[in-house]
Amino acid sequence: MSTLNKVIKYASPNSAGAECIDPDCSWVEHWVHRAGPRKEIYYEPEEVKAAIVTCGGLCPGLNDVIRQIVFTLETYGVKNIVGIPFGYRGFFEKGLKEMPLSRDVVENINLSGGSFLGVSRGGAQTSEIVDSIQARRIDMLFVIGGNGSHAGANAIHEECRKRKLKVSVVAVPKTIDNDILFMDKTFGFDTAVEEAQRAINSAYIEARSAYHGIGLVKLMGRSSGFIAMHASLSSGQIDICLIPEVSFTLDGEHGVLQHLEHLLNTKGFCVICVAEGAGQDLLQKSNATDASGNVILSDFGVHMQQKVKKHFKDIGVPADLKYIDPTYMVRACRANASDAILCTVLGQNAVHGAFAGFSGITSGVCNTHYVYLPIPEVITAPKHVNPNSRMWHRCLTSTGQPDFH
Amino acid sequence: MSTLNKVIKYASPNSAGAECIDPDCSWVEHWVHRAGPRKEIYYEPEEVKAAIVTCGGLCPGLNDVIRQIVFTLETYGVKNIVGIPFGYRGFFEKGLKEMPLSRDVVENINLSGGSFLGVSRGGAQTSEIVDSIQARRIDMLFVIGGNGSHAGANAIHEECRKRKLKVSVVAVPKTIDNDILFMDKTFGFDTAVEEAQRAINSAYIEARSAYHGIGLVKLMGRSSGFIAMHASLSSGQIDICLIPEVSFTLDGEHGVLQHLEHLLNTKGFCVICVAEGAGQDLLQKSNATDASGNVILSDFGVHMQQKVKKHFKDIGVPADLKYIDPTYMVRACRANASDAILCTVLGQNAVHGAFAGFSGITSGVCNTHYVYLPIPEVITAPKHVNPNSRMWHRCLTSTGQPDFH
Amino acid sequence: MSTLNKVIKYASPNSAGAECIDPDCSWVEHWVHRAGPRKEIYYEPEEVKAAIVTCGGLCPGLNDVIRQIVFTLETYGVKNIVGIPFGYRGFFEKGLKEMPLSRDVVENINLSGGSFLGVSRGGAQTSEIVDSIQARRIDMLFVIGGNGSHAGANAIHEECRKRKLKVSVVAVPKTIDNDILFMDKTFGFDTAVEEAQRAINSAYIEARSAYHGIGLVKLMGRSSGFIAMHASLSSGQIDICLIPEVSFTLDGEHGVLQHLEHLLNTKGFCVICVAEGAGQDLLQKSNATDASGNVILSDFGVHMQQKVKKHFKDIGVPADLKYIDPTYMVRACRANASDAILCTVLGQNAVHGAFAGFSGITSGVCNTHYVYLPIPEVITAPKHVNPNSRMWHRCLTSTGQPDFH
Amino acid sequence: MSTLNKVIKYASPNSAGAECIDPDCSWVEHWVHRAGPRKEIYYEPEEVKAAIVTCGGLCPGLNDVIRQIVFTLETYGVKNIVGIPFGYRGFFEKGLKEMPLSRDVVENINLSGGSFLGVSRGGAQTSEIVDSIQARRIDMLFVIGGNGSHAGANAIHEECRKRKLKVSVVAVPKTIDNDILFMDKTFGFDTAVEEAQRAINSAYIEARSAYHGIGLVKLMGRSSGFIAMHASLSSGQIDICLIPEVSFTLDGEHGVLQHLEHLLNTKGFCVICVAEGAGQDLLQKSNATDASGNVILSDFGVHMQQKVKKHFKDIGVPADLKYIDPTYMVRACRANASDAILCTVLGQNAVHGAFAGFSGITSGVCNTHYVYLPIPEVITAPKHVNPNSRMWHRCLTSTGQPDFH
Repeated sequence: MSTLNKVIKYASPNSAGAECIDPDCSWVEHWVHRAGPRKEIYYEPEEVKAAIVTCGGLCPGLNDVIRQIVFTLETYGVKNIVGIPFGYRGFFEKGLKEMPLSRDVVENINLSGGSFLGVSRGGAQTSEIVDSIQARRIDMLFVIGGNGSHAGANAIHEECRKRKLKVSVVAVPKTIDNDILFMDKTFGFDTAVEEAQRAINSAYIEARSAYHGIGLVKLMGRSSGFIAMHASLSSGQIDICLIPEVSFTLDGEHGVLQHLEHLLNTKGFCVICVAEGAGQDLLQKSNATDASGNVILSDFGVHMQQKVKKHFKDIGVPADLKYIDPTYMVRACRANASDAILCTVLGQNAVHGAFAGFSGITSGVCNTHYVYLPIPEVITAPKHVNPNSRMWHRCLTSTGQPDFH
Repeated sequence: MSTLNKVIKYASPNSAGAECIDPDCSWVEHWVHRAGPRKEIYYEPEEVKAAIVTCGGLCPGLNDVIRQIVFTLETYGVKNIVGIPFGYRGFFEKGLKEMPLSRDVVENINLSGGSFLGVSRGGAQTSEIVDSIQARRIDMLFVIGGNGSHAGANAIHEECRKRKLKVSVVAVPKTIDNDILFMDKTFGFDTAVEEAQRAINSAYIEARSAYHGIGLVKLMGRSSGFIAMHASLSSGQIDICLIPEVSFTLDGEHGVLQHLEHLLNTKGFCVICVAEGAGQDLLQKSNATDASGNVILSDFGVHMQQKVKKHFKDIGVPADLKYIDPTYMVRACRANASDAILCTVLGQNAVHGAFAGFSGITSGVCNTHYVYLPIPEVITAPKHVNPNSRMWHRCLTSTGQPDFH
Repeated sequence: MSTLNKVIKYASPNSAGAECIDPDCSWVEHWVHRAGPRKEIYYEPEEVKAAIVTCGGLCPGLNDVIRQIVFTLETYGVKNIVGIPFGYRGFFEKGLKEMPLSRDVVENINLSGGSFLGVSRGGAQTSEIVDSIQARRIDMLFVIGGNGSHAGANAIHEECRKRKLKVSVVAVPKTIDNDILFMDKTFGFDTAVEEAQRAINSAYIEARSAYHGIGLVKLMGRSSGFIAMHASLSSGQIDICLIPEVSFTLDGEHGVLQHLEHLLNTKGFCVICVAEGAGQDLLQKSNATDASGNVILSDFGVHMQQKVKKHFKDIGVPADLKYIDPTYMVRACRANASDAILCTVLGQNAVHGAFAGFSGITSGVCNTHYVYLPIPEVITAPKHVNPNSRMWHRCLTSTGQPDFH
Repeated sequence: MSTLNKVIKYASPNSAGAECIDPDCSWVEHWVHRAGPRKEIYYEPEEVKAAIVTCGGLCPGLNDVIRQIVFTLETYGVKNIVGIPFGYRGFFEKGLKEMPLSRDVVENINLSGGSFLGVSRGGAQTSEIVDSIQARRIDMLFVIGGNGSHAGANAIHEECRKRKLKVSVVAVPKTIDNDILFMDKTFGFDTAVEEAQRAINSAYIEARSAYHGIGLVKLMGRSSGFIAMHASLSSGQIDICLIPEVSFTLDGEHGVLQHLEHLLNTKGFCVICVAEGAGQDLLQKSNATDASGNVILSDFGVHMQQKVKKHFKDIGVPADLKYIDPTYMVRACRANASDAILCTVLGQNAVHGAFAGFSGITSGVCNTHYVYLPIPEVITAPKHVNPNSRMWHRCLTSTGQPDFH
């Protein structure tokens, strides 16, 4: 994260704003900055061309962020706003055209889920993208995406600096898993937890209505179990919650299967919630990666389903398992009210950050404060559920599950 | 279907009711009877023990039917009402106890999905069940279940007649697929179509937001495509709808895959809705059956998913397929308002039928009239979508799909 | 209803359609016609200018009908399709412009409630509107509206005939109350009943959670109680349902208030559902009319609220009444799946009817068949709930309410 | 708030818990305590009789809190748990009986809104209640209620101390308005904001579909505008938001009505959100109070509705206003996922606090930490929206409304 080298100072449209950014500020000393409008801005709004791109998988709230970025840019007076279609791919794929954006165009896009601009994974070489940015004369690039896309955004930012282009690259973290370092919450997470209730309740109904019924719900969470933990806790209907951060055994005296048997014998049914990235040590490793460079995980949900079925068949006990994977139905939702507010603030701040002359930053909320953080800091590792935290203990209290070792 | 041989006549609680049933009526002449209360009833309500059992898979409205049967029995003055847990299994499985039912117990069960009594597939020998009915001194048995369970109910009815037991066996058809002969609509169908919208819209959002996105939704419908057809039509978002009644080819010049290519090239994305029983001729046959005796179908949804992925990989065209199977989330829903009314009427009529002395009948709606039909008639074959019907043509007009041959 | 006098015959795009309309057919003999495409059409699609107008209050499904009319017109090959904004007002109010319509414009309008074209009540003189139709060179006018707007549509049709204009005026009945003669169901009704559940359940929760709680829900139904009856029946939570067709007394030994007292004493709480037009004989008459010419009814819901509060205050019994009027929240919903299908068919048929050369007709479903009916026939009087019908008796059984006389 | 004078120390069931409470701790120094289980507990669980009471109006999450208190008490080993029906009234009203509570009883109460125990406003003399507490041998009293009920709870606590009764009185703040001092958020607020979206969107649809349409939504907020502010911000559909904390004029050059005219002229429609307690200075004061002692506010929503209608009638400009008051439909909702977690933690902590020997405390979340606060501190005044806060400014940016002075 850095401010642009040569900045032109204009009067800010919001002169009641916070301190002016010192372009020479040392990010070592102040690596996190309070987000918001600044007294002085470093672009002449009428001359700015701003571009927005959304990358990776769907996440509730994408359209809210796009919408707010457009609204806020217009408030500054920017006339030339475009959307890059289908992620970074839109920079180079022939036949994909920039989409002109304005208040009229985006007015109601928040009423449906998905991304109005389209998303895609992966992309091209950084230099290719920056060539395109140069050719299109883009001054501000807003990247809404996950870890991989943030890395991409930072590479673009570095390349722009190298080429001495005055381009602000500002990101907004999109991870439904809520696994970005330093951030209290990322947009879409709250909606995902809410929407997951529907799947959990279905699993509960199916399990409870069946003889020795087992409901198994797989939720998102590649490396972090926040969705599974929160969804389990809020549902109050989960007996076993398995997340990537807490290892467990399936077999053996203290294994999950043994506990399942116990539940069928006592309670008569059981509902399980697993994060997709749980129990990776129990699966065969693969080294494949997807187009965004993420290691393709083996699907623990499906593995669990097979193990449970086989186990009860082997021991000759009836068990009626129903497996629910609501991933796409959760992802494709529109943002709930709480996420809509978060998206509004993050989107507005992204624009304030760009006008303040920042580049290589991302817009987030940290310890209840809205801030700008340097991209490299937040992508060093995913944020994890702390197995010693009160929240995880509350989850364990709620499920009543033992230590599976 | 028949009326009980020896009937005792009591004054009906609803003397404004329809004609009295002639116990000698010939079902050949009048094989369908208008449902409703009769002037005379054939049981002394205070002496009746009534039992309710729910069989097979879940279906929205099960609890509504149970609730109305209990309410109506109480209106007649019946005091002894029990639920048999977990389908026919509850008649013989040790440790499963009858559940006493009353207005207080069932008052709010309609507010959640599933079956308050529990369901299960398959069952025991008919004679074993009738032994249990005798031992429990059950006078009326209400069976809510699908084709297989109706066959079971009829066998129980026949066995009771053979043993000269005065037991009324009255069924209510439960098939979310809406595939019961002669019946305008079965309960749960409307809710299923409604709830399927959520999955279809998610598939649409995913497809539209992706580069060459393909959304594939598998809906219920083993041998009949009513859910897929209605859900496609009402969504207005489906490009291709495939049902069991209409054969199609995947490959070849006029195949589905070719049309898919065309849609990706022109529209950029595509949403497909398949009934689970579609395209069985394209799959390898299996002879396996489930506990209810239904042939286990190969899963066409998964097959389609694999074929599409392979096809686009083979021809080197990017395609981003998202597969959604919302089956359990649809089944586990509570009934919507329209189904709630249908369940109310069917449940009430089931009780009226039993008190009128009928046995071996099922309660349905036929050509807008509520009727009793003899069980054997309705289970000879499933009802099918007529490929020449206006409704299927409307569906084709809506999707714009060609003839896939 | 009549066919146009001088018709030009073109080949129908759907030659597999039904019989050709005989323009001389006697509507006395065949006053209802099966709806659908005809072999021959009476307009050259490429030359047609079609206009759509929505009148009166909101109703779920308006956008679905608009969308289908546009889709079907395009299927015929019509290029010139416009929306008249804000009801008949759009024909003469300065500053209101025709809205060009096409598949792209209306593709997703069904995803939200309301009317994409805008609605308004009342209008201008018929001659003024026909002047405007002439000036705009409109060949087909699709009117989606209630009783008053149907009368207007028929007057326009008559005026066009008088002026020998070849204009097809085809209506689609819009009445959330489901009170159109001969029609099984009008669009929006099903959604309204569904959405009313939310209000009823809130009233139930409020009543049950309060000491001597009374929940009072007012639903739509100016002269017909279909919504109140169906919503009460499907909720299973209503103790008293009052509709316009069934008179009742509030005071006296057999009055509603006495029954309320009884319910508070025995059950502890009570939930009431009233149609807005119920109990008009108990209110002071007004002769005022709204802009559509409907007599402005006194608000029985508010009257009831005041009477109940006063009564319990007078007799010194605590009672905690909560009044809920969900009208706008129900009206503004998008159509549910069942209504979406109904709207699709009605909209398609409206276009088929216009191309068949009909004018002065309305598109509906009658005894399960989709038909065209002459407008004057359906607007002679509103359809009413039959107090002797099985459905009303089922409602009474469900509420357990006595005869209030 | 204080710890009980004479405490008996038992081993805590959760010995990994936080520091032991020092019963002599000075609340001046440490007036806020971190919530959670303590190493030592001051009651023998098996001897404890715990009572739960819910007071005031409904709020989403009441049942979640009740349920968690019961679950947590059972975890400690408490056998004797009762619910006091209908608020403080349940302590003295004849005929109201204690409700025995256990896991089985409360297992699924969170699936519906309202209060399982019933609520009511106001109550008896403190001494009367404490007499009842003594007579019933209650050791722990959990009060879930608003400001007035908190005052009541504290008075009960003081009276118990005076009588040297070893009774823990622990409160959980219930205010849908989110207006409790020091607390980040109170339960039900998030759900209310979410549910209010439905009303706002209906108002938007109605306004947008009408000629010069005005949608007016009144939301909860007697003295604080948090719900109106958050709901406006998250909807993105509000043009004017009026809250109690920010005064405004309706008339005059800079008044709300003038701005309304402007919006109708430019945008064609307008959506307004008012908190019920807004603009009290514009209304005639009343000195009446309700049973809980709250001053009865004049209804600003209705006042606004009348003023707007009159204004546009006076100036001869058409305006079509639709007024929506969704209060009961919002209050009666079940808690959303986010509130469900909050309720879980607050309920658990209430029990931990009682077992730790605290009395006169309330359980809340303060600056992201779960804490115990002394009741008198939190009820000195309601928490208000800060008109200089970033959140209010974001709301103004979102609505685009001017300063109405």
